[in-house]
Amino acid sequence: MKQVQLSHGGGGEEMNRLIHDLFYKNFDNDILSSAEDAAVLKPAGSVAFTTDSFTVSPIFFNGGDIGKLAIAGTVNDLAMMGAKPLWLSSAFMIEEGLPFEALERIVQSMAQELKKSGAKIVCGDTKVVPKGSVDKIFINTSGIGEVIQEGISAHALEIEDVIIVSRDIGRHGAAIMMEREGIDLHSDLQSDCETLWPAVEALIDAKVRIKAMRDATRGGLAAVLNEWAVASNICIEVEEEQLPVCEEVRGVCEMLGFEPYDLANEGTFVLAVNAEDAPLALETLSRYPFCVDAAIIGTVTLKKPGKVILKSPWGSSRFLELPKGELLPRIC
Amino acid sequence: MKQVQLSHGGGGEEMNRLIHDLFYKNFDNDILSSAEDAAVLKPAGSVAFTTDSFTVSPIFFNGGDIGKLAIAGTVNDLAMMGAKPLWLSSAFMIEEGLPFEALERIVQSMAQELKKSGAKIVCGDTKVVPKGSVDKIFINTSGIGEVIQEGISAHALEIEDVIIVSRDIGRHGAAIMMEREGIDLHSDLQSDCETLWPAVEALIDAKVRIKAMRDATRGGLAAVLNEWAVASNICIEVEEEQLPVCEEVRGVCEMLGFEPYDLANEGTFVLAVNAEDAPLALETLSRYPFCVDAAIIGTVTLKKPGKVILKSPWGSSRFLELPKGELLPRIC
Repeated sequence: MKQVQLSHGGGGEEMNRLIHDLFYKNFDNDILSSAEDAAVLKPAGSVAFTTDSFTVSPIFFNGGDIGKLAIAGTVNDLAMMGAKPLWLSSAFMIEEGLPFEALERIVQSMAQELKKSGAKIVCGDTKVVPKGSVDKIFINTSGIGEVIQEGISAHALEIEDVIIVSRDIGRHGAAIMMEREGIDLHSDLQSDCETLWPAVEALIDAKVRIKAMRDATRGGLAAVLNEWAVASNICIEVEEEQLPVCEEVRGVCEMLGFEPYDLANEGTFVLAVNAEDAPLALETLSRYPFCVDAAIIGTVTLKKPGKVILKSPWGSSRFLELPKGELLPRIC
Repeated sequence: MKQVQLSHGGGGEEMNRLIHDLFYKNFDNDILSSAEDAAVLKPAGSVAFTTDSFTVSPIFFNGGDIGKLAIAGTVNDLAMMGAKPLWLSSAFMIEEGLPFEALERIVQSMAQELKKSGAKIVCGDTKVVPKGSVDKIFINTSGIGEVIQEGISAHALEIEDVIIVSRDIGRHGAAIMMEREGIDLHSDLQSDCETLWPAVEALIDAKVRIKAMRDATRGGLAAVLNEWAVASNICIEVEEEQLPVCEEVRGVCEMLGFEPYDLANEGTFVLAVNAEDAPLALETLSRYPFCVDAAIIGTVTLKKPGKVILKSPWGSSRFLELPKGELLPRIC
């Protein structure tokens, strides 16, 4: 079995071959092929710039792999700023001995995922480190997007805004946990890992007045809502019963003592919209298979500014706190 | 001793504290503090975009550390494209248990190095992975710069152009090798690790007609010259005697069987300039302490297109080949 060797990262002939035969072949575009130490780009106006490293373990999981995640994750960060994803960098940190076939699957998966937003990889970097210096492979992707909808911000929430979640929550965290713990629920629980830009673009095109938008990755839904409550100094009241959670995620949570709203997602986003626009937002989202379970989950009030309140169907309520500790290392 | 914990990367309270108390404090600027999922930037024209991961071992070495390297390396990639470094991302991949004091030194070193170019860190990412998943710390920096001098390219070399190297070669590779092998030459051999933008800006301001420019990192001087020879389909004839090499580097090379032109540099660049402009280029470079040993090392000819010829002081000559294999893993 062919493996990645230290020489593939040495800056010489072997590295040139790897770059041309694998990366350039799969990520082919004019900017990348003419890039030298850096790619030259011509942005039209304001741009959004973001970075993310991916360290997920296992590198292949139900519903995705580290390559799909590395593209979707960075593209989604741009999308959440109302920015059309245009240009990405990809930097590989590879452990000596990684099967070449695994690297190839990852790169092909990245190329596949790029098609969903139309973003292009325009520059890259490859490091190969000795066995034991990194576990299999880490990938960093940074991205630049053109801001097409300004003003979306955690600071922009106002009283009476409606909170929408784009689909059922907790899938990525639960799927990774099942793989790691070897749990078999006789089910096919897949990560939600997905490029969200098409749905976001549709919301912008439909002129939904989006106040805030965030993908609920590490820290889950709980982290997003708490950040918004603090940033806008408002209260978010959430109806627990309205939170979409699939049976398998509920099962994993009960078994391991987690809450779905603390689990990471990789293709699920939260929206705060003008109340009048909520039906239009839901209708628009419903056109995308990865958003069919979109639901209104709460509203913005002034009850306890800076706090998120979770209301049970039985009339009781409690604060939904920011998650503490490390729920699950190497989730993304 | 305080150590980095998994919870510092968990997306919750502890991570927020780390980001605010360490990263925001040291990298403080308006764009960073207002960034959410991405920073919003307003570039004026064409921009250069580059990425680099840093995996150097040891993380502290004579003349620098992984933080200084992570800033200088990415800033230099932009500078080499004739682009003024403006905005950087920084993504940390940290091994659980890294002493907090080490992380702090690295971050402070990054902040220090940023001052030399005026570039700002505007977005970031932090991952903490379990012990054994990465060796101490990897850092990825991506960067965006404003292209102020267009047309600098490996494809732009022409016959009679003069090749200049900005200082004595091989220091970074030799310094790291000495640290690793525990070689003590009773000397203070320091890495050349340095932000090159001030010298590059001065060359552009002086209107030196720069054809190609490249920092001689992995693969050393040999890799840069070979890439240029192939890209421009010209021959580069190098006078071996003119290559600036300090005594310590020469000593390490003799001891370990390396050639100085194959060793990595982290603050040394190669220039191809119009022959008439060579004296102006040398004079301009000489104003910078990290370029006082700048020297003309060769010229562009058509003798063997696509090849680099090394001419000895005794009249013999041989091809200077692209380095093969992995000279030194985790050099940068």
